[in-house]
Amino acid sequence: MTMEESEDLKKKLALMEQDIKISKTMGNIKHKIAVMSGKGGVGKSTIAVNLALAFANKGYITGILDSDLHGPNVPNMLGIKESFLKFDEEGIVPIKSDDGLAVISTKFLLSEEDSPIIWRGPKKTGAIRQFLSDVNWGDLDVLIIDNPPGTGDEPLTILQSIQSLDGVIIVTTPQSVALDDVKKCINMLKHLNVNVIGLIENMSGFVCPHCNKKFSIFGENKGEKIAEKMDIPFLGSLNVDLSVSRSIDNEVPVLKQNPDSEFSRGFIKIFSKIEDFFKEEEK
Amino acid sequence: MTMEESEDLKKKLALMEQDIKISKTMGNIKHKIAVMSGKGGVGKSTIAVNLALAFANKGYITGILDSDLHGPNVPNMLGIKESFLKFDEEGIVPIKSDDGLAVISTKFLLSEEDSPIIWRGPKKTGAIRQFLSDVNWGDLDVLIIDNPPGTGDEPLTILQSIQSLDGVIIVTTPQSVALDDVKKCINMLKHLNVNVIGLIENMSGFVCPHCNKKFSIFGENKGEKIAEKMDIPFLGSLNVDLSVSRSIDNEVPVLKQNPDSEFSRGFIKIFSKIEDFFKEEEK
Repeated sequence: MTMEESEDLKKKLALMEQDIKISKTMGNIKHKIAVMSGKGGVGKSTIAVNLALAFANKGYITGILDSDLHGPNVPNMLGIKESFLKFDEEGIVPIKSDDGLAVISTKFLLSEEDSPIIWRGPKKTGAIRQFLSDVNWGDLDVLIIDNPPGTGDEPLTILQSIQSLDGVIIVTTPQSVALDDVKKCINMLKHLNVNVIGLIENMSGFVCPHCNKKFSIFGENKGEKIAEKMDIPFLGSLNVDLSVSRSIDNEVPVLKQNPDSEFSRGFIKIFSKIEDFFKEEEK
Repeated sequence: MTMEESEDLKKKLALMEQDIKISKTMGNIKHKIAVMSGKGGVGKSTIAVNLALAFANKGYITGILDSDLHGPNVPNMLGIKESFLKFDEEGIVPIKSDDGLAVISTKFLLSEEDSPIIWRGPKKTGAIRQFLSDVNWGDLDVLIIDNPPGTGDEPLTILQSIQSLDGVIIVTTPQSVALDDVKKCINMLKHLNVNVIGLIENMSGFVCPHCNKKFSIFGENKGEKIAEKMDIPFLGSLNVDLSVSRSIDNEVPVLKQNPDSEFSRGFIKIFSKIEDFFKEEEK
């Protein structure tokens, strides 16, 4: 065997070992749900954070993995000020949010708050795989994974690495261009044989708080039709709600800060469909 | 020299040859502007398409390169139905839009409309470099490059490959989380020594068309403050405007479909600042 071949073999063995470790780490978690979107800016992280909180409120021990290497927004949305990873003898230790969520974010990898990660592909997938293998989540009932948007390296790595993923929730806005990207996303999931829990249409419209007129500010709602056409469940639609942007600015999930808002009430309806999916699965 | 070393050398030579070809191709284009954003869904492609149209309306021969491999929306926004690349002896031939824009998009690389590109990093940067080197743009005055969002492989490849870029326009929304990502983006540009033309705040608010009340639907506007703090020019803010989503659904740029809309009027003000930047540069 040449030096070259021996190096190659070492690398392959290391990857296999990591695969086994990912299987073990993920095997300890009962349910794993990834939240995805075809494009960015559709409110994916907002959905992921509130989904995690909804599970926690129901008594599930819940964690959230923010795997967006370029825009890791989950810690801010949960008011987490810590910014460094902690380690113990069993691996990386998640940070506990005020609501008791176990949180791991790529943000904790950045030395300075505003420094960009300008990593090339292989280094990025390596970082994500390490998160999947080396975090000591403890006994979790549910792990919500906030995937990076799109169909690139990072979401792909996650979908390929977690063999026992319960399924994926796809978030979109009603714009036709966003929906084009959603179709690509669904086709990727079908191609990879990953279960789709359903589609959520976010920012479906805006009801003027002053005159109560509703406006389709991002175009006519097409989410439900796309879900039907692509043969995946439609979980519901959520309007633009001032309480959501306020809650993000306040770094508290809207479900906690404003549980009676239109958004929160709509979200709880969607959540109960997702919980039903779980119960159905457990039977 | 071993086989391995000889292969490595061949690859390096091929990359160098491509660098020279990119320099030549890009050298034929007078002005090159990249439109970027820290996160997706902020209206970057809408800005890029209308910016290209604004230049064309002023008599500049203008092209647009849609380099988003995962959500290439530019052809749809311009009502382009063709979906395959054409070649002649001098390279890849851009498609002409109804408005006379020369258009190249990664969408033309996809065999089926809704199929996802699930390429790994190196293959993606290779595709982008090929677009930069092999397109026969003819004599362009201005090339607008619609960059993929974020600070990942693809925007990085473009910024590193085009040595003679005039500068970058950054698009954001007022949300605090979007602004966190904008800071990262500006820091990346500073790190790479790339000129920042300025920041545009999109979706700054929504004026109810029925009662005329204005709502900060995506949080309090912070774009101007961030621009000041990061020491880059602030180009202006644009509200959410129903005419924009309608124009996207109709596949016609809003500047053409509805030139008197609030958005179009605001956009033209921003455009004249960008044109001034050019004139300043030419002195």
